[in-house]
Amino acid sequence: MSVVVVGSVAYDGVETPHGRVDRMLGGACTYISLASSYFAKTKIVAVVGDDFAKEDEQFLADRGIDLEGLEHVPGKTFFWAGVYSADMNDRTTLRTDLNVFADFHPKLPANYLQTPYLILGNIQPSLQRNVREQMNGLRLAGGDTMNYWINDYRAELLETIRQWDFLLINDAEARLLSGENNLKRAAAKIFQMGPQTLVIKRGEYGAILFRPDGHFIVPGYLLEEVFDPTGAGDCFAGGFIGYLAEKGFDLKTGHINAKEISRAVIYGSVMGSFCCEKFGVDRFRTLTRAEIDARFNEFRAFTEF
Amino acid sequence: MSVVVVGSVAYDGVETPHGRVDRMLGGACTYISLASSYFAKTKIVAVVGDDFAKEDEQFLADRGIDLEGLEHVPGKTFFWAGVYSADMNDRTTLRTDLNVFADFHPKLPANYLQTPYLILGNIQPSLQRNVREQMNGLRLAGGDTMNYWINDYRAELLETIRQWDFLLINDAEARLLSGENNLKRAAAKIFQMGPQTLVIKRGEYGAILFRPDGHFIVPGYLLEEVFDPTGAGDCFAGGFIGYLAEKGFDLKTGHINAKEISRAVIYGSVMGSFCCEKFGVDRFRTLTRAEIDARFNEFRAFTEF
Repeated sequence: MSVVVVGSVAYDGVETPHGRVDRMLGGACTYISLASSYFAKTKIVAVVGDDFAKEDEQFLADRGIDLEGLEHVPGKTFFWAGVYSADMNDRTTLRTDLNVFADFHPKLPANYLQTPYLILGNIQPSLQRNVREQMNGLRLAGGDTMNYWINDYRAELLETIRQWDFLLINDAEARLLSGENNLKRAAAKIFQMGPQTLVIKRGEYGAILFRPDGHFIVPGYLLEEVFDPTGAGDCFAGGFIGYLAEKGFDLKTGHINAKEISRAVIYGSVMGSFCCEKFGVDRFRTLTRAEIDARFNEFRAFTEF
Repeated sequence: MSVVVVGSVAYDGVETPHGRVDRMLGGACTYISLASSYFAKTKIVAVVGDDFAKEDEQFLADRGIDLEGLEHVPGKTFFWAGVYSADMNDRTTLRTDLNVFADFHPKLPANYLQTPYLILGNIQPSLQRNVREQMNGLRLAGGDTMNYWINDYRAELLETIRQWDFLLINDAEARLLSGENNLKRAAAKIFQMGPQTLVIKRGEYGAILFRPDGHFIVPGYLLEEVFDPTGAGDCFAGGFIGYLAEKGFDLKTGHINAKEISRAVIYGSVMGSFCCEKFGVDRFRTLTRAEIDARFNEFRAFTEF
């Protein structure tokens, strides 16, 4: 079954201890949809400027991504630049030029409206809500957010996530949103806000899946080299939703094994780990589904006891 | 089979966001042996002053711990005091009075010498080596160390751990010892130093077991309240060695399933998690083996997929 992904398509400038790239394809929607495309038909909703390169569009199309919802407007594509710390656990934003993204109002093509899976990248909550409300027959909807919206648009954000089945955020965001330092208690508070599936991303330490009936924890994959962590969290999201769409998972009827949600978290972790192996989206130029499944099996091998 | 534990028996003053205790039983040897005592006959080698309380000695004896190697000398028992940060991931030492521990020279009672399992708490490497060399017929020996010895006693430490089967340290120590930031590469370097079993403790994020033939990762147990993390790493060590001793594991002949070492890491994690539930050693006043095994099964439930 297919997935709609909404968010930013951007150009990024990134510096890590392994090197520097001044301008490369990036953005949450790009990473989510690339990861999701290995599992399910993926349709994007995003905006780019007239500087958006034909070869970048072709790269997404070659992965089978439906670009009907990729709007082209005059002006420049969203540009972000940042530099990572030596251990790559912190990053400093050097530049954020919203450009055409400043006026982004997601427009859903008619043939997207019946898509059963929806994932909303980190954009203004009211825009996320507007998309969610246009969709019919959703089996599963959710997304990401960030500290800026949690702090300064709290009411709007709460109104938005109330309709979500799942929320994918990092540990600092979970603490900020819930006001609880302890993650178990943070999860209990977030369940009261709407989403009954909460995935907390912990970077190199893995992820925790919280559901009202229990939790599942996966450690992070040990890479020998992390070249560039940009987009890893979004690739996690893409692997997560993509796998659930591939399985046809339906939260409302819950007709498949609950362990499948844990497996979706593993596939998310797998996609996030591959993302870090090269700069930007480069790993996805060669990555195969066989490599993905092999790494899924590695996760089983190093966590089983 | 039985275990010899060498290290500090101390009094601690601890302040955490949950409260403050000015003086309570502590020390690496105390925590390791309490945890180990649930699995195997445990014999300690340590020194205390004439202020060491009868009830504290009785508490250890009640757990079946052999105290023949607990030396009593005139003077005061080692005292340490520290305060934890709000999230309890950092702590500041307020006071370290070595007292009788300054002249600690571990003396092994004759009937300890044939014990098959040895774990050396964090003390001066030359003392650790001296103990190791007195023992006959060891099946498994190893221990802990810290940044002070890694930095200022490096040659002595390397000479010591060359004879160890396992090394149990935290991630910062592994990086310092190996000079590698990446943990996989750190492990490869440490294998060359001697120990072929390396357990890296990551606090709330769990632990990684490295062996030349692969690795195993366990996430940390999610507690709703961490009252006092003091001793958690030592309890991990005690659960680890205790379980291997219970199973009669022999690294040289390797006669039991390699998965048993992973299970020892789980039992270590279980004991570390219980330790945090009350101040100091208090959780061990009521803890039962049935509770330990139940939590082991919880680890399986929240990591299986």
